[in-house]
Amino acid sequence: MTIKAILLGGGLFTGAALGVTLGATPAMADEGMWTFDAFPTAKMKADYGFAPDQAWLDRVRASAVRLTGGCSASFVSGEGLILTNHHCVVGCAQDLSTATNDLVANGFIAAARTEERKCPGQQAEVVTAISDVTGAIKAAIGGATGDALVKARDAKIAEIEKAGCSDTKTTRCQVVTLFGGGQYKLYTYRKYSDVRLVWAPEFQAAFFGGDPDNFNYPRYALDSAFLRAYENDKPVKVSSHLKWTARAPKVGEPTFVVGNPGSTQRLYTMDRFAFVREVSLPITLSTYSELRGRIISAMEQSADKKREGGDTLFGIENSLKVFVGRQKALNDPTFVKTLADNEAQLRGKVAGNAAIGDPWADTAKAVAAYRELYLPYRFLRPNSDLYEFAHDLVKIAAERAKPNGERLPEYTDSRLPLLEKQITDPRPVYPWLEQIKLEWSLSKAREYLGADDADTRLLLGKESPEGLAARLLGGTTLADPAARKALLDGGAAAIAASTDPMIQYARALDARDRELTKVFNERYDGPITSATAKLADARFAAYGTGLYPDATFTLRVSYGKVQGWKERGADVAPITTMGGAFDRATGNDPFVLAKAFTTNAARIDKATPYDFVTTNDIIGGNSGSPVVDRDGNVIGAAFDGNIHSLGGNYGYEGDVNRTVVVSTAAVQQALEKIYPAPALVKELNAK
Amino acid sequence: MTIKAILLGGGLFTGAALGVTLGATPAMADEGMWTFDAFPTAKMKADYGFAPDQAWLDRVRASAVRLTGGCSASFVSGEGLILTNHHCVVGCAQDLSTATNDLVANGFIAAARTEERKCPGQQAEVVTAISDVTGAIKAAIGGATGDALVKARDAKIAEIEKAGCSDTKTTRCQVVTLFGGGQYKLYTYRKYSDVRLVWAPEFQAAFFGGDPDNFNYPRYALDSAFLRAYENDKPVKVSSHLKWTARAPKVGEPTFVVGNPGSTQRLYTMDRFAFVREVSLPITLSTYSELRGRIISAMEQSADKKREGGDTLFGIENSLKVFVGRQKALNDPTFVKTLADNEAQLRGKVAGNAAIGDPWADTAKAVAAYRELYLPYRFLRPNSDLYEFAHDLVKIAAERAKPNGERLPEYTDSRLPLLEKQITDPRPVYPWLEQIKLEWSLSKAREYLGADDADTRLLLGKESPEGLAARLLGGTTLADPAARKALLDGGAAAIAASTDPMIQYARALDARDRELTKVFNERYDGPITSATAKLADARFAAYGTGLYPDATFTLRVSYGKVQGWKERGADVAPITTMGGAFDRATGNDPFVLAKAFTTNAARIDKATPYDFVTTNDIIGGNSGSPVVDRDGNVIGAAFDGNIHSLGGNYGYEGDVNRTVVVSTAAVQQALEKIYPAPALVKELNAK
Repeated sequence: MTIKAILLGGGLFTGAALGVTLGATPAMADEGMWTFDAFPTAKMKADYGFAPDQAWLDRVRASAVRLTGGCSASFVSGEGLILTNHHCVVGCAQDLSTATNDLVANGFIAAARTEERKCPGQQAEVVTAISDVTGAIKAAIGGATGDALVKARDAKIAEIEKAGCSDTKTTRCQVVTLFGGGQYKLYTYRKYSDVRLVWAPEFQAAFFGGDPDNFNYPRYALDSAFLRAYENDKPVKVSSHLKWTARAPKVGEPTFVVGNPGSTQRLYTMDRFAFVREVSLPITLSTYSELRGRIISAMEQSADKKREGGDTLFGIENSLKVFVGRQKALNDPTFVKTLADNEAQLRGKVAGNAAIGDPWADTAKAVAAYRELYLPYRFLRPNSDLYEFAHDLVKIAAERAKPNGERLPEYTDSRLPLLEKQITDPRPVYPWLEQIKLEWSLSKAREYLGADDADTRLLLGKESPEGLAARLLGGTTLADPAARKALLDGGAAAIAASTDPMIQYARALDARDRELTKVFNERYDGPITSATAKLADARFAAYGTGLYPDATFTLRVSYGKVQGWKERGADVAPITTMGGAFDRATGNDPFVLAKAFTTNAARIDKATPYDFVTTNDIIGGNSGSPVVDRDGNVIGAAFDGNIHSLGGNYGYEGDVNRTVVVSTAAVQQALEKIYPAPALVKELNAK
Repeated sequence: MTIKAILLGGGLFTGAALGVTLGATPAMADEGMWTFDAFPTAKMKADYGFAPDQAWLDRVRASAVRLTGGCSASFVSGEGLILTNHHCVVGCAQDLSTATNDLVANGFIAAARTEERKCPGQQAEVVTAISDVTGAIKAAIGGATGDALVKARDAKIAEIEKAGCSDTKTTRCQVVTLFGGGQYKLYTYRKYSDVRLVWAPEFQAAFFGGDPDNFNYPRYALDSAFLRAYENDKPVKVSSHLKWTARAPKVGEPTFVVGNPGSTQRLYTMDRFAFVREVSLPITLSTYSELRGRIISAMEQSADKKREGGDTLFGIENSLKVFVGRQKALNDPTFVKTLADNEAQLRGKVAGNAAIGDPWADTAKAVAAYRELYLPYRFLRPNSDLYEFAHDLVKIAAERAKPNGERLPEYTDSRLPLLEKQITDPRPVYPWLEQIKLEWSLSKAREYLGADDADTRLLLGKESPEGLAARLLGGTTLADPAARKALLDGGAAAIAASTDPMIQYARALDARDRELTKVFNERYDGPITSATAKLADARFAAYGTGLYPDATFTLRVSYGKVQGWKERGADVAPITTMGGAFDRATGNDPFVLAKAFTTNAARIDKATPYDFVTTNDIIGGNSGSPVVDRDGNVIGAAFDGNIHSLGGNYGYEGDVNRTVVVSTAAVQQALEKIYPAPALVKELNAK
């Protein structure tokens, strides 16, 4: 998965509309994913009687880590030690596993620093500066529309990003679009592209309860792990880190979640919600449910497949729960009425404001165009790791030859270093899983586009999905990182000369892919960018600028407190204990205790706080976020949301929406009694 | 599948609202699935300038066959020969197949009558009388409500059915609920419980184009087969059959489709549509998509599994297309607006009619209750053939001991003979497929109900879905028809004494299953029955009695004509030729020509009409229906609908909704040139 989405669970979506608000209106208590350059100090003071000062904010920001795999994290020692979730490192653990040494099942403890192991494709990033570039980008856009708007915007972004980070080895610049184009901010990051696995518990401890318990509560999961940032083969000395404190959380105490919520759609218009409900979500749910089934059956065939498919299946199941929850929210008439009422309120407030015009009508028109374009746009890119490599290699060869400002945005100078790292880092590719994903995605393309559609013919020719997938995967050498590096270094000439069938296939799809992007920009992205910028203006005019933007997988802070909630009239206690895991275990998957838990049962302090819930407003991408107390010390790592955070993608419900956290107390107990790592305990608790 | 639904296809649902009407309002030209006791003679005369007379209707009715597997058919010779679709006999062909003799892949031609082979579980039924019993049943219901209403209604139905058919060996009586309780009719059938396979082409000929082409057009599918009814081991001499005519269909000629449309929801209120859109359809689509994936992967493991899983996979894929189409229809704002407008019109017409009251509000209340009840009601019955046997055996043992009128309706004297036949007929059970279905359905129950739900605990105890399924399937003897018969004959004592784990499991679920039925009756079925009876009264008051009821898998006749349609401005020709199959073949699955087609390519008259479309209003269950010309001769068998019949479950669109038919001309060409069956050709064309 890209982002461990922190949203939803099983059961019917109920009570959705209690206290739901939207970014469209001023935030309620505890609502909001705030940027660090616009922390709502006055509002928090009003809610809590205090708020962190600038020094607090600066130190916490400098300790917060973004993991490019789609997670959040934090430095917790001066020697580059990083706390995150187990599910944020499970892909790494799987990449490093073999048939005889399964790091996912068995966990991993580096006996010494020299045994800490590099995670393929992983990079850690820390924000060092945020500056407003709204004026420059809006000026560059000027009066442009459609594809020209997109090109002007992207060229300016590429220019700003390139100018901002001359040292691309240790820094990264990223222009972030906030309020859908209402604001643009340049984020500068210190980056660490050598990230190594330090400690991970057994999968069965981290993910006790498995998919059935995911997004549910009470929970008993040790969903935590440690990484370490390296540079020049040495642990990085970081100037700022959070202080580790293994104390128990206190009910009612204020908590801050500092991380990178991936994306929310709280500022959508009703037409965009309708598109999601009517068009995109149903396709996603049906097709990914089928993929889930294909992988489950295949994994039952052998122990190797069970191990190799684990991370992919987990990602799919996690995403499906997220999407089911979104579907329930958008199918809940009361919830949707709240969304509609909020939109009506905003429209009423800016009615007659000529500078704003009617961005709702403009959005409706763009969405109508997108409905026409959606199926080919969605299905033309087959799903397979090796195809993705081929796609990127073909594109990079062409794009690198162009001036930076004229490239597709994925391939500008500021974006290429990470992409090139991800292409060339060695990691295993599982042929059976590639075959499943490729034949599945090709067959779904045919199913939704129709057998006689021109794009289906482009994708398949006269071949079957199964036969084409087998031919491409049988002939390609792209599973070899050296082959990928050679094509990357060889550029356009190497791509043109390649006889690799996967490269040839990506070349064959390239023109249509570019054409669809152009049409998408012209008819959807461009018009939507104009309209959402106007909608942002409308919100600022109606409610002032004290609003938080939709999530963008960039650094945010939310405040809240340790608190349970009422479930059908009964109180849900906010904190579980490690002893609870023993009570919940059935001895059958996925409620089997991890081996180290049973082995060390007598040593474990069963009263240790395990997981807890807070009212913080988070979403997928926040996984691994440090949960920080009033003093700026870390007391846990956020790893999930409860069932009621289902609709959090569209609106926050303060009375029931909860973040689920693994406590530092439990992690320390694990490091002391279950997966002994005395050096780590010492490092974490160093004065 | 139970009913080969004849509805929908891929692509986006467009232009849905053109000319949609509902059963709520008077039917448009060609709309309607009419009962034989209420054929709209005047209306058809007005539309077509003629209408069939009573003798025509009587003869056609007497030739029409219902297949209890969920299909329609017709007698086409005096010796009990039955024309239907290949996909209506594919389950039989698979049941009769072995690893070395695959009747699905290779087709089947009985070299002589003695080689015609019995289809497990199959029964053919011909309507012999229809009488109105509305008064008796409404009187029995009286002022009862809730569960008492259901019990009074069901007791009266059981009594009428039992009284109507004293000879249960050759007759069957069935009270049919029309207009959701507005009318009750007693249908009497002559039944034939020994049905044998006579002829079936290769699967690749019958289903050329496979799932991608299903519900699409133009088509090139020989979706036809012949069965024969037997009695006392001899072919049945039937008094009425349709005259076979292998002539080409003529564009514009009137056509009648005579068959058993399974079910439609055209008379639903908006609250019931909302329930389907918001609650039941999303669950069906996600869970069955996953099952599809599980089976696809498993079938790729071996040739045996590929053969054994074929029929199940086909049924699931077919149903998923139907459900995707329904979802698109109910997510189409224009389509839904038409439904809402129709409801508003009817409400307006009966406003203030005290006898009718407010059945919409009553329905809303019942639907709200059903939303609460739905998950356990849906998930408490695991999906597995062997579990179904156990469930029925446990229920039969208890129910048979009660007076007929007090039993659950599935187990009354009029229903038991067919059920007992289905339980005791020998047919293969595939353990790997049972394991997949059982572990899938148990894991979905846990997913939707939640791991801590009381019903989940009842279903699983402390076991995992995978482990429980393996234990039950590993220990049960119910795959053996003799074991099933012994339990059936042994009654309550045998069930109570059984150590079969599947029987024990069904016993453990029995009390909760009965409780849920009772709650369902009390809170949903009873109130809905009252409300829909009132809604029927409202329709009769507003529009007269010349309406057709929603489909009920009972005999109907629709009239229409051979006619193409306009697709995005281009004409779709109504008739394909057999030569077209050769043009469409790619050599890759599912566009591979059947072996007999390539072998006999030179002999085949390529100009022979193959498939054609008509404007007839049909739905799933109509598969295999004879398509009859003005003279009462059969010119084809309906086997599918086009993409635009997607929304036909909710409303008929005359300009684009089409029935897809395999022509008798093509079938005869196949019998003469491709799968030579000279005796059959002779029998069909006997004077």
